[in-house]
Amino acid sequence: MSQPVNVAVLVGSLRKDSLNRKMAHALAALAPAGMTLSIVEIGELTLYNQDLDGAPPASWTAFREQVAKADALLFVTPEYNRSVPGVLKNALDVGSRPYGKSVFSGKPGAVVSVSPGAIGGFGANHHLRQVLTFLNVPAMAQPEAYIGGVGDLFDDKGAIAKEATKTFLTSFMTAFGAWVAANRKG
Amino acid sequence: MSQPVNVAVLVGSLRKDSLNRKMAHALAALAPAGMTLSIVEIGELTLYNQDLDGAPPASWTAFREQVAKADALLFVTPEYNRSVPGVLKNALDVGSRPYGKSVFSGKPGAVVSVSPGAIGGFGANHHLRQVLTFLNVPAMAQPEAYIGGVGDLFDDKGAIAKEATKTFLTSFMTAFGAWVAANRKG
Amino acid sequence: MSQPVNVAVLVGSLRKDSLNRKMAHALAALAPAGMTLSIVEIGELTLYNQDLDGAPPASWTAFREQVAKADALLFVTPEYNRSVPGVLKNALDVGSRPYGKSVFSGKPGAVVSVSPGAIGGFGANHHLRQVLTFLNVPAMAQPEAYIGGVGDLFDDKGAIAKEATKTFLTSFMTAFGAWVAANRKG
Amino acid sequence: MSQPVNVAVLVGSLRKDSLNRKMAHALAALAPAGMTLSIVEIGELTLYNQDLDGAPPASWTAFREQVAKADALLFVTPEYNRSVPGVLKNALDVGSRPYGKSVFSGKPGAVVSVSPGAIGGFGANHHLRQVLTFLNVPAMAQPEAYIGGVGDLFDDKGAIAKEATKTFLTSFMTAFGAWVAANRKG
Repeated sequence: MSQPVNVAVLVGSLRKDSLNRKMAHALAALAPAGMTLSIVEIGELTLYNQDLDGAPPASWTAFREQVAKADALLFVTPEYNRSVPGVLKNALDVGSRPYGKSVFSGKPGAVVSVSPGAIGGFGANHHLRQVLTFLNVPAMAQPEAYIGGVGDLFDDKGAIAKEATKTFLTSFMTAFGAWVAANRKG
Repeated sequence: MSQPVNVAVLVGSLRKDSLNRKMAHALAALAPAGMTLSIVEIGELTLYNQDLDGAPPASWTAFREQVAKADALLFVTPEYNRSVPGVLKNALDVGSRPYGKSVFSGKPGAVVSVSPGAIGGFGANHHLRQVLTFLNVPAMAQPEAYIGGVGDLFDDKGAIAKEATKTFLTSFMTAFGAWVAANRKG
Repeated sequence: MSQPVNVAVLVGSLRKDSLNRKMAHALAALAPAGMTLSIVEIGELTLYNQDLDGAPPASWTAFREQVAKADALLFVTPEYNRSVPGVLKNALDVGSRPYGKSVFSGKPGAVVSVSPGAIGGFGANHHLRQVLTFLNVPAMAQPEAYIGGVGDLFDDKGAIAKEATKTFLTSFMTAFGAWVAANRKG
Repeated sequence: MSQPVNVAVLVGSLRKDSLNRKMAHALAALAPAGMTLSIVEIGELTLYNQDLDGAPPASWTAFREQVAKADALLFVTPEYNRSVPGVLKNALDVGSRPYGKSVFSGKPGAVVSVSPGAIGGFGANHHLRQVLTFLNVPAMAQPEAYIGGVGDLFDDKGAIAKEATKTFLTSFMTAFGAWVAANRKG
């Protein structure tokens, strides 16, 4: 039997009715046995400023502690202006510091980009992957997940209403389970 | 005689003794005749959240107004984790919204990436350029400015201490002047 | 009256029935008055090898001469494996050399990425833009052109069959005309 | 005892005295026990053209067969014009086709970018990583290898002359061995 896996989920949009947050919940329901997804909130994080490293804001410390406990990382994000939303990049910057104490290092990860339009957040997806390389987060290559046309994707209860997308995301989560098993630390 | 040019400068680091801020001041001193550089502060901007578009925080409104008045944009930024710092990306997200009301659109721009290491902020520089494409900010192609080894670049008064770098940055600012003249609106 | 503009068009696919080639011809028909588009062939270019710079293959010399005569550059390309096709990148490498003798430098350009899928060649489009920065080819920011779903875009005569796409591409070419007028050399 | 690992090495420069080729040989000498590196030549590959898929050139078939036999992939490449050399991208395009028959899929990989300048091939390194995502080649995140200032890196016998670089590259190859062990197929 495989080990349980705790996944920290970072959602790149702060909107109350965020489609990315809905997606995160939907993915939690599709996760393979033994994998638990928990959203780590990033909306209250003070903007990263190295001058604060000596006496970090409570928001930073709480965020870092939650991520540190996780076995793996899942990013569910929109694209803002062809790249990663500032709010998500700020969370990555906060968690990566102080120098040498990144809470991300060595945790396997995966990326789901979500968009109402056709392009499916390609720009955010790959900019995020470049960051993950540096953060020593091995990011699952395939399947890639560019989820476009998300406006009518969910039913009233927040489940995936399109069968093809549900099948795809189930296989995505299964592959993520195998990816984490192969690349987790310790 | 050419028109005066007001340049809004966005600095990607919040540190009090930020080398990027020093660089912004040094560039102001090297600007061609008629060009004035003014730093627009980004450290107090609330994280972008679409739910706030209806009643925007005062920090957003002030930022947007300052940028809107400028004729051109200059970005002076470090690289955080192989990409644009979250604090700078958040400012870009705030200024780009509400949809259809971006304060950046049509203003010519240029990018200077600054780093203590050898790579000179390449990752931040080009991720930022991808964003500027979407924001309709024509970004000067050449000269590119990847300023590495910045730790000992400035003298006690904040001026550029290395003659070769000073010469390069002077030509950079001259080229920027020509770029703005060719591409400014109105 | 504006100056005539000769545009060298590089097409990123070698297929005889290439949809990108069809797109290049369709764009020629939508160009503003005074702008002429000519495809410069890249399919016979020897792979770039610096050892050949002293006695360049005839294919290289012919390509360089054709590009050198142009006032502006238009790239019409598919995405291969999330990036620029090797055949197009090879042409860019050939034209950029020998060192200091690039035939591209200073010519304004624009990018159209074309794809049968939904994403519209985003990866090729932006990787190409990063290259153009280095080549000193000021690339038009807006409108961006990611043309997806291209399988049924053309009619029997090769014209654009979808009215909305035709309108968009006409405005794209008009904007390109203004871009070239602002940024052409000499 | 771990399984033997055969690594196909793709070198991004065709120059006879290519520093990248030297680097490939130097890396072979630093590989962990059980790992064998073999350069697969890419300089004679016909430019990719989908029309040839039905009757592929002999150069394509030979290349595909050699890559198919390998357990893992190592890319040693310069940066040409801020991206992957056309010659290397062409090899990736050839090996990825016909559709559904990519010879790369599922083989773990690593990237070493090599440059005489300071930036160390950053642009080539990360554009290549974006391609590898699509090709289902899990690319090692850390350590990243941007090897700049390569002009005086090798001694007369082609070994690494700088001790710090040799130490780094040895740890790189050790990490690559562990990466392959975790992610190889079958």
